[in-house]
Amino acid sequence: MISGIEFAGTASGIKPSGLDLGLVFFRGGMNVFTLYTRNKVKAAHILYDKTVETGPVRALLVNSGCANACTGKEGVNDLGVIAGKLAPILKIRPAGLLFASTGVIGKRLPADTIIRSLPLLVKNLKDTHVDAFSRAIMTTDTYPKVVKETFRGKKEYSVMGVAKGSGMINPLFATMLAFVFTDYPVPQGALKKEFVHSVKESFERITVDGECSTNDTVMLFTRRGPEDRQGIAGFKEALLSVMQNLAMMIVKDGEGATRVAHIIVNGAKKKEIAEKIARRIAVSPLTKTAFFGCDPNWGRIIAAAGDAGVSVQQSKIDIILQGEQVAKNGVEVPFDEETMKKMMSKKDISVIVNLNDGKASFDIYTTDLTYDYVKINASYRS
Amino acid sequence: MISGIEFAGTASGIKPSGLDLGLVFFRGGMNVFTLYTRNKVKAAHILYDKTVETGPVRALLVNSGCANACTGKEGVNDLGVIAGKLAPILKIRPAGLLFASTGVIGKRLPADTIIRSLPLLVKNLKDTHVDAFSRAIMTTDTYPKVVKETFRGKKEYSVMGVAKGSGMINPLFATMLAFVFTDYPVPQGALKKEFVHSVKESFERITVDGECSTNDTVMLFTRRGPEDRQGIAGFKEALLSVMQNLAMMIVKDGEGATRVAHIIVNGAKKKEIAEKIARRIAVSPLTKTAFFGCDPNWGRIIAAAGDAGVSVQQSKIDIILQGEQVAKNGVEVPFDEETMKKMMSKKDISVIVNLNDGKASFDIYTTDLTYDYVKINASYRS
Repeated sequence: MISGIEFAGTASGIKPSGLDLGLVFFRGGMNVFTLYTRNKVKAAHILYDKTVETGPVRALLVNSGCANACTGKEGVNDLGVIAGKLAPILKIRPAGLLFASTGVIGKRLPADTIIRSLPLLVKNLKDTHVDAFSRAIMTTDTYPKVVKETFRGKKEYSVMGVAKGSGMINPLFATMLAFVFTDYPVPQGALKKEFVHSVKESFERITVDGECSTNDTVMLFTRRGPEDRQGIAGFKEALLSVMQNLAMMIVKDGEGATRVAHIIVNGAKKKEIAEKIARRIAVSPLTKTAFFGCDPNWGRIIAAAGDAGVSVQQSKIDIILQGEQVAKNGVEVPFDEETMKKMMSKKDISVIVNLNDGKASFDIYTTDLTYDYVKINASYRS
Repeated sequence: MISGIEFAGTASGIKPSGLDLGLVFFRGGMNVFTLYTRNKVKAAHILYDKTVETGPVRALLVNSGCANACTGKEGVNDLGVIAGKLAPILKIRPAGLLFASTGVIGKRLPADTIIRSLPLLVKNLKDTHVDAFSRAIMTTDTYPKVVKETFRGKKEYSVMGVAKGSGMINPLFATMLAFVFTDYPVPQGALKKEFVHSVKESFERITVDGECSTNDTVMLFTRRGPEDRQGIAGFKEALLSVMQNLAMMIVKDGEGATRVAHIIVNGAKKKEIAEKIARRIAVSPLTKTAFFGCDPNWGRIIAAAGDAGVSVQQSKIDIILQGEQVAKNGVEVPFDEETMKKMMSKKDISVIVNLNDGKASFDIYTTDLTYDYVKINASYRS
């Protein structure tokens, strides 16, 4: 709970069943920092929000079940129509309202259905209803994702984040839907760099399936008000922590995932090289199926490293799985298959690839690739 | 059958059961053209062959069940030791012998096991034994892959190709194991460009899982002898046709695949742009699981196109699935879900993405992503 911020969620009928429409209302105007997907195909809410997000923000309407992406001008107009109906109920200007959507690409929002449910949604608004909101924005997520931290400036402040995400997760420059709220009066624009940095160190350090969505959105809403410089250090720390926790909740809830692998590439000449190799290993279907099969298959890891489009010297590469060195100078260090298989069956996998070629490193979290990932995506129009 | 070329296959014991060692013997010296993987981590046979492939070639030993990759200097030395044993049996110089391997990465070849089976293998050599050879080089392949075409110069010539490949298939600049033989006397070096062109238009136009192997190898063995310029056009045509047929056999035998999708990107400003988009769509787990689910989910296709790292204008993109236009100018063209689902259930899927932004195009074949792909790769150390 953050005083002055109210939440609601309802089952409006966008989905056949379940919560699908969430609303956040700010009793005072908030500043907003946003980052959107780097996908060249962008959802309507991104095109729309960019036109209104300059002024103070008073509310945020988020739906699941329909991405409102690839819906042309009509998709953007639909949001204008909904804003025209919701703003008077909330007694705010339409330009004070932002949108976000997630779900099936290519279908327009059922605007009438949404408009019909707005009065009830507004009636449900309450400081304590963040759970309903966090559930209303879920698609294939199996649990809601809310994180809160507090820190001190002149007084105690909070940073609270709500996110959704499970499949189509490979955020770069942006992410799935994540909303972070704080009552700390961050001067608009002043901490943009911190915001981008926190996103880079959290949501951009996870992947589920290497798929960058059309709808990825991170929004940070901050209280407007007199400066409190004493709180800056605490705020930065809380912001990063909230985002990292949300990111970990998303990757752990990756579609069909049974385990999370932490891929660490050390000893690179440059960070960019370590990053390319780490990301290539993290999206490799062969390493990801090996994780599912508890297979200490370091050959697939080194093959992915060699296919990252950057120069590597295979005769220098060391690989450590679950703390056990399985390859040194590019060749196998004999290990007991049964013992390693048992170690690989844990929920958390640690993969360290040392290039022994420099001092730069990069790390990223990924999931295993399972029957259930195929099941979810072969049977659900998500 | 090509006169002067003998084949054999045997179960040497590299695998727990089944054929795993294949031999080709050339009664006269052949010229050879080769292309190897672009993966920076390369198998021992590639490092070894490069040192001997300049002279005339008299034999080729290929094993499955062990990739002999990431085995260091020992892995390369093992091949020298085997060559030293096999050459005297065949009465050839050791330098006239090439190797190729496929299977598990990181394990050394069981050289003693292989050496023990060489006398029997040589005894099995016969012009007609190409089937045994083609089966001996299989891993997760479900059928052997042999293609033969004939053409006329001053006399009739043949081009015969043998390939293996099913998973870890994403050849660029090279491919899985493919061996092509011809009795046409191609002057060494003269048709290198044709060879590379044929590889680009065949093996480099398929993908199964976006994984470039450490062992990808294409070898073209050509008869040495007096020129026959009348045969050049026929040879070029037959070479391309044999390679394209082999490539299609590989993608159709993709690990766990139930269908093959032909991804065609038209209307690009440059061929490179069309290629990046086609390849991105072809490796997208979300489009590939949709193919498995017979889901006409064009939203995932356009999302992949937007994530290809090249500029696209979403409002210009048309998408045609199985000949039916499902999106125009980036938005949905209404279609009957049940009819489209039925059309998507065919073995062959056609996906046309028109960028309406120029005249360049590119096409590639890919598979669906299925439970069986996960099963094969989570349970088999391949």
